[in-house]
Amino acid sequence: MSTPRISAVYHVRADDSTIEAQAKAIAVEQSVEMPLAAIDSDWVMENIVGRVESINRIGDGLFEVRVGLAVETTGLEAGQLINMLLGNTSIQDTVTLVDAEFPEAIFQAFRGPNLGIQGLRDACGAHGRAMTCSAIKPQGLSVAGLVQLAERFALGGPDYVKDDHGHADQAFSPFAERVPAIARAVARANASTGYRTRYVPNLNGNLDAMREQIRIARSEGIDTFMAPPMVCGFPTFHTLVRENPGCAFFSHPSMSGTPRIAPEFLHGKLFRLLGADAVIYTNYGGRFGFTKQTCQTLAHNATGAWGGLRGACPVPAGGMTQDRVAEMVDAYGQDVMLLIGGGLLLARENLTAETRAFVETVERLGAA
Amino acid sequence: MSTPRISAVYHVRADDSTIEAQAKAIAVEQSVEMPLAAIDSDWVMENIVGRVESINRIGDGLFEVRVGLAVETTGLEAGQLINMLLGNTSIQDTVTLVDAEFPEAIFQAFRGPNLGIQGLRDACGAHGRAMTCSAIKPQGLSVAGLVQLAERFALGGPDYVKDDHGHADQAFSPFAERVPAIARAVARANASTGYRTRYVPNLNGNLDAMREQIRIARSEGIDTFMAPPMVCGFPTFHTLVRENPGCAFFSHPSMSGTPRIAPEFLHGKLFRLLGADAVIYTNYGGRFGFTKQTCQTLAHNATGAWGGLRGACPVPAGGMTQDRVAEMVDAYGQDVMLLIGGGLLLARENLTAETRAFVETVERLGAA
Repeated sequence: MSTPRISAVYHVRADDSTIEAQAKAIAVEQSVEMPLAAIDSDWVMENIVGRVESINRIGDGLFEVRVGLAVETTGLEAGQLINMLLGNTSIQDTVTLVDAEFPEAIFQAFRGPNLGIQGLRDACGAHGRAMTCSAIKPQGLSVAGLVQLAERFALGGPDYVKDDHGHADQAFSPFAERVPAIARAVARANASTGYRTRYVPNLNGNLDAMREQIRIARSEGIDTFMAPPMVCGFPTFHTLVRENPGCAFFSHPSMSGTPRIAPEFLHGKLFRLLGADAVIYTNYGGRFGFTKQTCQTLAHNATGAWGGLRGACPVPAGGMTQDRVAEMVDAYGQDVMLLIGGGLLLARENLTAETRAFVETVERLGAA
Repeated sequence: MSTPRISAVYHVRADDSTIEAQAKAIAVEQSVEMPLAAIDSDWVMENIVGRVESINRIGDGLFEVRVGLAVETTGLEAGQLINMLLGNTSIQDTVTLVDAEFPEAIFQAFRGPNLGIQGLRDACGAHGRAMTCSAIKPQGLSVAGLVQLAERFALGGPDYVKDDHGHADQAFSPFAERVPAIARAVARANASTGYRTRYVPNLNGNLDAMREQIRIARSEGIDTFMAPPMVCGFPTFHTLVRENPGCAFFSHPSMSGTPRIAPEFLHGKLFRLLGADAVIYTNYGGRFGFTKQTCQTLAHNATGAWGGLRGACPVPAGGMTQDRVAEMVDAYGQDVMLLIGGGLLLARENLTAETRAFVETVERLGAA
């Protein structure tokens, strides 16, 4: 009986004479990592050693290689999953992990977003239109300064307002002081306006610290969090998602810039598989180099039907401005959360009005 | 009063007309991540915003940029440290983090290896020569099969024998069964030979799981562990090191293949700072692409005087064979641990003899 396999898809730079050997080398590296001649277990050879499923030439010196990796080798655990998908091969600069087809066992074990894009919409009452988000920054402000900023954002009524990813647990604004104070400020603003802005604190530190941060925030009524999977590690991110089934999680892209994994797959699929309800990534045409095509494929991966998982909301960001809202809704459709941070903060004393204008622009462009 | 700064060193591809703006952009991205015009706190501008310290042209279209990053922004926590050093800038494919000069506060907070290279030597009685290591694999073998392999390795008397990094907590050899059984087999072998081979289990899963694994292994007398910082996350790795001051930790390079961080810095300094007593990396001339120069600089970084931290032992690996031992000792000197896994396993029924030959070759080449 053959065990189920993940079909991992790599792009490999090679030539016609070497590609077959390289493909086999990947299959070995990502499974048993030793010379096959030294393996004397038939069961291991049959069930554990990676299998080259196909090799297709897709360009000059570029090949798509599919490798079947035994699900059992992942132990159905998030760190071991990425270890088996790319681990040592990440160090080969001729190989990029571009996609994977997962069997049912993987989807059942990892389970994806708790709430998904629809749950994020329900939580803030945003239907038939893109969602809006802004970011509280800079780090270094006192808690009082951050509270004031958060309140002024919230008075403009964006759907979400998140911590900057630089906010950790620093002396100038410790998590345990900062987050409850901001949560209350946003609640105050909501009570006065009738909007339903939701505050998203940034989690940081190790698993213990993040659990304690979630406890603190939940006691203030917060149920949406941000964390960077490439900093805290896949196991930590996945653990938090599964431990908090009523909560939503935004993935932050810090340290995600490994050209050895296609961003379309990393953000759109892997982070979704781990349970990101919203995936923040660097939009085309901003401060970073992703192409429009990459961003659209990433968004499609995040939202499309996949293994029965809830869809994750794409959150293109990184130097976005109000004058790009219409273009972004055109590029992504309504299933997107538009995140403008610095672009709104530049309005300074007019922050609330500028935030309100952003929100109304997005509402006008809605499909409903 | 000015707060202490980390001096982060980046290589930036740019041209003469754009490098200044790019350097400033990195300084902003890695600190406040927002337009400076929107910051109205003088304290933040003075103490938190990153500062371009120098720009030097080092090649055609290539510059070395030094950026001063405020220590306070790191919160003296491992995840936030890498978030501040490279985080979002990892997504810029024109920038590579190549080094950092840390002020005393960082060394005092992170503290580096518990035992260091000298402690690893003392633990197995290996002085005046390179240390030796092999690896138990493939994953997929039953516990009984792995035990037999471990015992045959240990009878040859290498200093260390480690799990393959593919060994996690899979159904075919669960950690809680595998590790105690292997620990006892190695102890049995040591009792019969008088050698002092030390077994190094691979930790996996989240922080809870790794703690439990350490507890299980320690109850069998094991005090040396392996974990991959880029998979488990910097915070998890650093937490385990600091929680177990009597134990040694090997860093494994899985998922370390980000061309946005120079390997010399990542393995030789950052992993050492977090507390790796031994850093496993892919050697030149094996299955991976590092140059000899990169590997030698990495080893020098790991072992050299640095911030008062203990030295970490370089462990070049990845397709090493016995016939390279003399060349590697020549390249690295005696402060190295030579790791041959598959190359020994190919000896099959002669595994113990081949391991013994490897150990004796290394002893002969010793300086003592």
